[in-house]
Amino acid sequence: MTSEAAAARGAVVARRLERARAGLRKHGAGALLVGIGADLEYLTGYAAHPLERLTMLVLAPDGEPLLVTPTLEAMGASLAPAMAIGAVRVLPWDETDNPHRLVAQHLAKCSVPAGSRLLISDRLWAMHVLALRAVLPEMQLGLASEVLRELRMAKAEDEVAALRAAAHAADRVVAQIAGGRLVGRTEADVSREVRERLLAEGHATAEFGIVAAGANSASPHHAASDRVIEAGEPIVLDIGGTLDGYCSDTTRTLWVTGGAPSKGPTSEFLEIFGLVRAAQAAASEAVRPGAGCAELDEVARSIIREGGYGDAFFHRLGHGIGLEGHEDPYLVASSEDVLAPGYAFSIEPGIYLAGRYGVRIEDIVVCGEGGPDVLNVSSRDLWVVNG
Amino acid sequence: MTSEAAAARGAVVARRLERARAGLRKHGAGALLVGIGADLEYLTGYAAHPLERLTMLVLAPDGEPLLVTPTLEAMGASLAPAMAIGAVRVLPWDETDNPHRLVAQHLAKCSVPAGSRLLISDRLWAMHVLALRAVLPEMQLGLASEVLRELRMAKAEDEVAALRAAAHAADRVVAQIAGGRLVGRTEADVSREVRERLLAEGHATAEFGIVAAGANSASPHHAASDRVIEAGEPIVLDIGGTLDGYCSDTTRTLWVTGGAPSKGPTSEFLEIFGLVRAAQAAASEAVRPGAGCAELDEVARSIIREGGYGDAFFHRLGHGIGLEGHEDPYLVASSEDVLAPGYAFSIEPGIYLAGRYGVRIEDIVVCGEGGPDVLNVSSRDLWVVNG
Repeated sequence: MTSEAAAARGAVVARRLERARAGLRKHGAGALLVGIGADLEYLTGYAAHPLERLTMLVLAPDGEPLLVTPTLEAMGASLAPAMAIGAVRVLPWDETDNPHRLVAQHLAKCSVPAGSRLLISDRLWAMHVLALRAVLPEMQLGLASEVLRELRMAKAEDEVAALRAAAHAADRVVAQIAGGRLVGRTEADVSREVRERLLAEGHATAEFGIVAAGANSASPHHAASDRVIEAGEPIVLDIGGTLDGYCSDTTRTLWVTGGAPSKGPTSEFLEIFGLVRAAQAAASEAVRPGAGCAELDEVARSIIREGGYGDAFFHRLGHGIGLEGHEDPYLVASSEDVLAPGYAFSIEPGIYLAGRYGVRIEDIVVCGEGGPDVLNVSSRDLWVVNG
Repeated sequence: MTSEAAAARGAVVARRLERARAGLRKHGAGALLVGIGADLEYLTGYAAHPLERLTMLVLAPDGEPLLVTPTLEAMGASLAPAMAIGAVRVLPWDETDNPHRLVAQHLAKCSVPAGSRLLISDRLWAMHVLALRAVLPEMQLGLASEVLRELRMAKAEDEVAALRAAAHAADRVVAQIAGGRLVGRTEADVSREVRERLLAEGHATAEFGIVAAGANSASPHHAASDRVIEAGEPIVLDIGGTLDGYCSDTTRTLWVTGGAPSKGPTSEFLEIFGLVRAAQAAASEAVRPGAGCAELDEVARSIIREGGYGDAFFHRLGHGIGLEGHEDPYLVASSEDVLAPGYAFSIEPGIYLAGRYGVRIEDIVVCGEGGPDVLNVSSRDLWVVNG
């Protein structure tokens, strides 16, 4: 990173830290206690490895922001943007220290009163939650998302650009897989190729490559197995990872013919595909500031329900995406969230007929000022391929 | 998997579930509540993807073992060993259900009395911890490791075999990297090659490939950067991932000469390397049933301390390894754990001179009935390579 880029990254996280502090005051909370994960990366630029030793940002309305970190991570932590610009001080702890006590001591220094609500990161491990309770018995615990979700949901321009780059890379991998050999290979083998291609297209990690062929496509989160792909069946391809810290996640449905005209999609399959395609398009088109997440779910669901397959679409419409593959907002009937500019999420309806087959189509969509900004650019039609 | 292999896997997890139940009774705990992660995989054979919807094994001393799982994961969950043999029943929840309430209801069915201590998995996310507290206000919370650590620490024969296979694969990758070109490449590029080679050697995941060259080798958990490797400097290579579910983790220190005799290791570097080499060997040789984890740490540390570099070895000697990269037991001065047959852990002393360079050597060692069983087989000497 050039020093200009480093300074720009520092300025970005410094603003986020200030907004988080303002959020603490607005919500009347005592402090944010942020462990390893996306919240920490968002607020400090530090992408710490998820290990068991406590790394924790302590941010109170007043007082110095502090990163409690194991000594052996201190050098790496100091190089991350918020620490590099001095916005957050690094406090290393040695192997036989009690790091949770260091957190408690810093809260006292920041004059956080007894009885305050401490907002811990939503994915903090239970071992740390219980250890914090033990050293802070007089405090209440809440979740950091109470303050951070409003910040993280509305993506800035550079975040949308990162999500778009990740989406386009995943689109290219879909096209590469669809254009290659499939018949006679195992799902697991194709899944390995997916993950290799995601890395080759610039992804730093390739967490998942769902390759669900034939009856397996009726399981939405099928793990790629040793099942061999045959001509005359569909494949649901749901792939993603991270590129420059931001996640990709796209699903396309293929039908493999093996080159035989008699092995094309059945009319029933085309019917359910058409319903999912229409539901996905309608929900995407309904994206605008002010639209409810539950409302979007219903836009898609009503089309599938009226087509006679309501029970076969048994998951929510989508999930937010950004530094994490699944994050707020969730597009689900029980949500009370309303879209605002910059919100980024998947739209991924599906129909699953147990023992037979399934269909899913997934795009990442950003809520723009005037409507949807669909990040994926690959065809949403059924990919009928020789395989 | 053949049906015989599946039945064998089922028998293994059924025994583990029974031992966990016995542990609950012995510890006087009300139930185990096990979320996604290694504990769940150990007890049920189910390697669920770490997503935000609650997946939870509810295991009480009496009553039916239950896996609460999102509907869209139910099909995959049902195929995993403990569910496939019927030892654990699957209870799917729909998107608008409250899964934590389903957990509470099942505890009532199992007659777990109010005031009981519920042992939640150590890495359960805070969002689930607080949600469980909300529906179970009359219960106390503890950590699942209270019961599960004694089970998981003592590896069975098949687990040791899996760790050995993973270790040997990582050894081959070390040799491949040491034999290839290094000078003029970035750390990040070599790290990418490490991860690709781990996958090529059969790893399913390749979580980390620490490539720390020159002064970066003084940071134990350095993230591979854009720094270009030069002749006349060391590289600390710390690599690992998972193979058949079990983790590899090995560190070797290289010195890159670029083929120039004048660019060999300095005498100071050879001195600190020699100390680390001696400390690593002495600690490995001291492994036997009954040896204390703190005692092993001191065996290595005293050698480095007496060599004059005590302050430069600022991390514990090692960590347990198995389904997780870091797990009990930890080889640290504050530990009260004593080795028993089957315990598997890293032995990885290091010396780090800030701004200059560092050395670390790491093997995975299993405590055998009669002494150490060192799983890694690659040379522990300094790898002086052309690069």
